[in-house]
Amino acid sequence: MDISRIKKPTLLLNENRARKNISFMAGKAREAGISFRPHFKTHQSAIVGEWFRDEQVGQITVSSVTMCRYFMEKGWKDITIAFPANPAEIDDINAIAEKINLNILVSDFEQLSAFAWKISADVGVYVKIDTGYRRSGIDWNRYGDLLRIADLINEVKYLRMAGFLTHSGHTYNARSKEEVLSIYNDTRSKMLHTRDILPISDTKLSIGDTPSCSLVTDFNGIDEIRPGNFVFYDLTQSRIGSCTTDDIAVAVACPVVSVNHHHNEVVLYGGAVHLSKEYLTEDDGTKTFGKVVSLSNDGWTVDSIIGSVRSVSQEHGVVTLANNSEIKLKPGNIVAVITVHSCLTTDLLRCFTTLEGEVITDFCGK
Amino acid sequence: MDISRIKKPTLLLNENRARKNISFMAGKAREAGISFRPHFKTHQSAIVGEWFRDEQVGQITVSSVTMCRYFMEKGWKDITIAFPANPAEIDDINAIAEKINLNILVSDFEQLSAFAWKISADVGVYVKIDTGYRRSGIDWNRYGDLLRIADLINEVKYLRMAGFLTHSGHTYNARSKEEVLSIYNDTRSKMLHTRDILPISDTKLSIGDTPSCSLVTDFNGIDEIRPGNFVFYDLTQSRIGSCTTDDIAVAVACPVVSVNHHHNEVVLYGGAVHLSKEYLTEDDGTKTFGKVVSLSNDGWTVDSIIGSVRSVSQEHGVVTLANNSEIKLKPGNIVAVITVHSCLTTDLLRCFTTLEGEVITDFCGK
Repeated sequence: MDISRIKKPTLLLNENRARKNISFMAGKAREAGISFRPHFKTHQSAIVGEWFRDEQVGQITVSSVTMCRYFMEKGWKDITIAFPANPAEIDDINAIAEKINLNILVSDFEQLSAFAWKISADVGVYVKIDTGYRRSGIDWNRYGDLLRIADLINEVKYLRMAGFLTHSGHTYNARSKEEVLSIYNDTRSKMLHTRDILPISDTKLSIGDTPSCSLVTDFNGIDEIRPGNFVFYDLTQSRIGSCTTDDIAVAVACPVVSVNHHHNEVVLYGGAVHLSKEYLTEDDGTKTFGKVVSLSNDGWTVDSIIGSVRSVSQEHGVVTLANNSEIKLKPGNIVAVITVHSCLTTDLLRCFTTLEGEVITDFCGK
Repeated sequence: MDISRIKKPTLLLNENRARKNISFMAGKAREAGISFRPHFKTHQSAIVGEWFRDEQVGQITVSSVTMCRYFMEKGWKDITIAFPANPAEIDDINAIAEKINLNILVSDFEQLSAFAWKISADVGVYVKIDTGYRRSGIDWNRYGDLLRIADLINEVKYLRMAGFLTHSGHTYNARSKEEVLSIYNDTRSKMLHTRDILPISDTKLSIGDTPSCSLVTDFNGIDEIRPGNFVFYDLTQSRIGSCTTDDIAVAVACPVVSVNHHHNEVVLYGGAVHLSKEYLTEDDGTKTFGKVVSLSNDGWTVDSIIGSVRSVSQEHGVVTLANNSEIKLKPGNIVAVITVHSCLTTDLLRCFTTLEGEVITDFCGK
């Protein structure tokens, strides 16, 4: 990669690291004897998808019908749409289910009732269980609600109960491995309890969050993991402890466009439409929208943090320089920003440049 | 518009309101006898740009070289790039300056030095002044720094001093017209003071923030306004008082995919990749990522707020329903979300559907 050719914010991808992350997670699932159904919403790219196939991955997860159709057209034949099935898209769901093994998600009885009898091809149905994240799904201990749903699934010819699916997104607020494991153990025991107490057969248990999937070693009782973010990881995951900063596989190359010595700051061409407005709160209460590190033709280095992106507007990223940094930035320099949330950055830029200089533009539409 | 055809998050545009907003601001500038150079970063669309031409607008502002080239190719011949000129894009700037009247922005001496002698076609140079927002630019009272910059501009054949440009983005934190006016008056007096004290000729004064441009009536001393967001406005602007909710010209149509009666919530297909992660903090400390209102074929109504988007993940928007709302949402319903920041939502969705059902896909690249 020739960084002197970078003129504007460019999403860089370290292919070796991404492949290593994929290999790590696939190996972990294999060793545990559980299914690995990675979530493709993080990369949204057919080319990166091929790197999973190289690790014998055949089953995937997506977060929209649009994404499902895209990956189906790229040859994927076993897909779970891990988002509440949208009554407005039932025709599309039927068309996909005619062609591939499709699982959909139910998160409440009314939703299921709204489309159950309109399904005209075989689909597996996962029931979304809320073990504490409080985003969507049935609270794990509302057994009556779960039974009603299971009964309706049972009644409809084309629906087949696939299992219970949860996403313990509250691990994203954890700050240590111990905290992640504690949330995971709580989630697992609730899932197992609910499965064991209910007279519903064939209920597989599927979990998804990258922190748990990265840090847990005992998957006893769990049938499937669906992590997505781990393929690239990011600043959030490294702060949780799911990865080290050396595992992070993407960064945004940004030109330095202005320096302000009086305020010890620089301005980057790289703002909310490149990095997103996702932030982390530092111990001193300040926000950071990314960490600035140095970049060469060989890639970025995380050895020394040059500064923190303290604010972003549409195209501007304002960086507070680290007091101890020996690197003196000048307008015209190109730096790398390790982003807070790699899924959102990828969705914004929709194009990767690998460290070998390959440009990957084959992306899912929105 | 037939809302029964909406299957996924769709950016709706009320053309009449946008045209009314354009007409209002153009008329205001005309009455004040000042230049109107609207910022096109909010809409990024050639079609919406034509609505400005219908109001005799001939000069525009953009936030990137890419955007400048896009609008130049759509026939715009007088453009200011209101973002610090990027030393990595000087060849592109020269190519554009060969063809149209171009103004660029300088925000520090080092930046100017990095490219000044590489400019090979006439460009106007605005010097970015910081009157308190603290994003970029020279502090208004660093006269020595300003003189050094003016001297170098003067020295280089192709550069011409255009004036002082500021963006009082701190008006976005205001909560009343009085607060906005107070910030504006402070900005104006600093700008006038600096211009008057320095022996630099031909310095026009250009201001940009939508709150000031919407609420100020006395533009005495100001030569140009460059607001952008006002074309659509949004929840942030209505909270500041720059507009009423009836002036907001865009909303995102979102399918309801799940209901949770136990928690008084619904889940929308509409998350961070549609609404952005921009939020407002409510008086009780909670965050809101958008307000949910009802939608019919005639458009959305702001008469009653159905609920607030309390959290967003990639595709999910979780809505806390208002206790006093009489509208009972069901999976399959389509609602409208009034977004916190219309510029970011537009950048994410890059396609408008007007209330007449016209689909506008002619958008600037990134």
